[in-house]
Amino acid sequence: MHSTLRLNAKAERRLKGGHLWIYSNEVDTVTTPLKLMEPGSQVVVEMANGKPLGVAVVSPEQLICARLISRNPQQFLDASLIVHRLQVAMSGRDLWYPHQCYRWVYGDSDGLPGLVIDRFGDVAVVQISSITMEMHRQEIIDAIHKVAKPKTIVLKNDGKLRAVEGLPEYVEIVHGELVDDCAPLIENDTNFMAPVIHGQKTGWFYDHRENRAQLNRLVKGKRVLDVFSYVGGWGIQAANHGAAEVHCVDASAQALDWVEQNAMLNGVADKLHCWEGDAFEALRQLKDNGERFDVVVVDPPAFIPRRKDIKAGELAYRRLNQMAMRLLNKDGILVSASCSMHLAEDRLPDMIRILGRELDREVMIQHVGSQGADHPVIPAIPETRYLKAVFARVLPTR
Amino acid sequence: MHSTLRLNAKAERRLKGGHLWIYSNEVDTVTTPLKLMEPGSQVVVEMANGKPLGVAVVSPEQLICARLISRNPQQFLDASLIVHRLQVAMSGRDLWYPHQCYRWVYGDSDGLPGLVIDRFGDVAVVQISSITMEMHRQEIIDAIHKVAKPKTIVLKNDGKLRAVEGLPEYVEIVHGELVDDCAPLIENDTNFMAPVIHGQKTGWFYDHRENRAQLNRLVKGKRVLDVFSYVGGWGIQAANHGAAEVHCVDASAQALDWVEQNAMLNGVADKLHCWEGDAFEALRQLKDNGERFDVVVVDPPAFIPRRKDIKAGELAYRRLNQMAMRLLNKDGILVSASCSMHLAEDRLPDMIRILGRELDREVMIQHVGSQGADHPVIPAIPETRYLKAVFARVLPTR
Repeated sequence: MHSTLRLNAKAERRLKGGHLWIYSNEVDTVTTPLKLMEPGSQVVVEMANGKPLGVAVVSPEQLICARLISRNPQQFLDASLIVHRLQVAMSGRDLWYPHQCYRWVYGDSDGLPGLVIDRFGDVAVVQISSITMEMHRQEIIDAIHKVAKPKTIVLKNDGKLRAVEGLPEYVEIVHGELVDDCAPLIENDTNFMAPVIHGQKTGWFYDHRENRAQLNRLVKGKRVLDVFSYVGGWGIQAANHGAAEVHCVDASAQALDWVEQNAMLNGVADKLHCWEGDAFEALRQLKDNGERFDVVVVDPPAFIPRRKDIKAGELAYRRLNQMAMRLLNKDGILVSASCSMHLAEDRLPDMIRILGRELDREVMIQHVGSQGADHPVIPAIPETRYLKAVFARVLPTR
Repeated sequence: MHSTLRLNAKAERRLKGGHLWIYSNEVDTVTTPLKLMEPGSQVVVEMANGKPLGVAVVSPEQLICARLISRNPQQFLDASLIVHRLQVAMSGRDLWYPHQCYRWVYGDSDGLPGLVIDRFGDVAVVQISSITMEMHRQEIIDAIHKVAKPKTIVLKNDGKLRAVEGLPEYVEIVHGELVDDCAPLIENDTNFMAPVIHGQKTGWFYDHRENRAQLNRLVKGKRVLDVFSYVGGWGIQAANHGAAEVHCVDASAQALDWVEQNAMLNGVADKLHCWEGDAFEALRQLKDNGERFDVVVVDPPAFIPRRKDIKAGELAYRRLNQMAMRLLNKDGILVSASCSMHLAEDRLPDMIRILGRELDREVMIQHVGSQGADHPVIPAIPETRYLKAVFARVLPTR
């Protein structure tokens, strides 16, 4: 017998409209005390009138204390549901990305909150961030075997969210093996090695794939600067698509080693220049040295991790983009990215508009991209759409 | 000596922020009466304090009574400026679209308000919608010759905006000739003939090119419905990319003849089915016949031509998308487009969210596209970004 979670009347409307999250102040805690619920357990969610609405997994101590996983009150998360959800998620990705290199599972969007799986062909890298999913760890591994039969499965369970849930951090190859702790992948016809054991997150950021595909169209013969390059996702693809020179800036010497390895893998090491150091400092030095570029890509980490960071974060984006725009040639392209879900959709283009006016440049937005189809958006949950990439042509003022 | 247009204090801020339009209530008509300005003439725009801000072209009787063409008060529209602007516009497009099939000039965005030029390789189709541009008609033709040396130049001067400016409607081949009144073009590697003389607008809608490129990735082996097909931009490309069957719906028998010609051109006529008739009626009949599709594309004309049509127009979009969603298979893709600038960016995904809930379907947004880079956006002018295309995977409710 599963326990129940009764909503107060206010919460129903949002959930009925397609949202999946239940906030702790939306629970009728007199009828169904959150305190009595087991962290990670599954509950039947009831409306205020007692009518069942679906099944949720609970994290009683979090602000988002429960997440709906089904609108069928008899359907609980178990081995067979996990298999089904992995199949549905896979067929959606295989259509767009036949190389089978993609984010296979994207948490809530795929009906599996707390679970991320990135697939590198025969290698699956799993990130579990909730107690529920940790409890279902073995079913998840079994389901991955059953659905995709990968040669290697890695649990990259070292994300920051785990500590919040009281989960230990660990990285473990639970099936097969990895050569040099890396997984090979193809993105837009360029080959990469992703450092899935020692790199950031799952080792690779698939979310910008479509935006990098756009960049690839524009770089032939160009001088390109890739700021916050990490392992070279933007820069190496640009080099591989005919850029004359690519300069990668990153604070991590380790990341730049991987950039160099990925450059060699594609035979473009001769075009590559690496700058180790703080991005803002590097941009300042490049400016002082009189350097100019045809294309500047700035793809920083989230400057607005929490809502309360909006003001400081927007200032950081502004400063970064200002420095980037100053390094552009007379007719250049600025590719400005943000992975901050708290940066509103229209803020980045508007920031670039203001900078253009201040720096006496004419700005034309040629493209605005977001995350690829392997990060599907639940339209009721704006947080599931977090990525922005603005392509602006920057000219002298008319 | 050019006359001047003095702004009142309120108007300055928007223009200094990058906007280009001056509304009639923003003019200091005591100092510089609009009534005394010649329609189509050029004026020096002054701030309220008399300091010059730039040069504008005027339409004294319109709500938007002037449009800034330069922030240099000495730079007027003349033969050499037109050549320069065409060159800058061309280099921006050639980078993205090396086939040289694109919207070459997109009005305000290219510093040439009232002028649109679509280029089909060696054929340039010009649409003039303002008195100023009509006055510079010969310089425009000369500039096109100088910059692109096309074999054919067509003036497709039959747009609705011309009557508003008191301009006569005419269509004229001013240079070279056309075979069968059509221009050949390549879009995303599919060949088309665009009916530049007898078709809508310039004969072709380049704006959806990038969205059609996305569709092409998803259609192999699928049954596709293309509603408001016009000459087959979506449908024929889908057929050419491996769709099993393509059904095109359009109210115009003439448009469907062109669809068939374009199908033959690509050797896909055997997969094609044409339905002549009202889109809503056709969708109802298809539903009654029990037809189902894997992919449904709805790309209607602007249902919200003016701001006051928002309510009625949103209802029409809602009804159309509802009927489209009902025709989808259990796991289908809805491609929902809107070219209404007055439909807010987030309305279409939200409408699809609501429909999904009402029809008991799970909706995941896989991609949101807009116009291509040959329709660049001036970030200060939201009206320059008008196109939407939402790709939603529609599944049974989880």
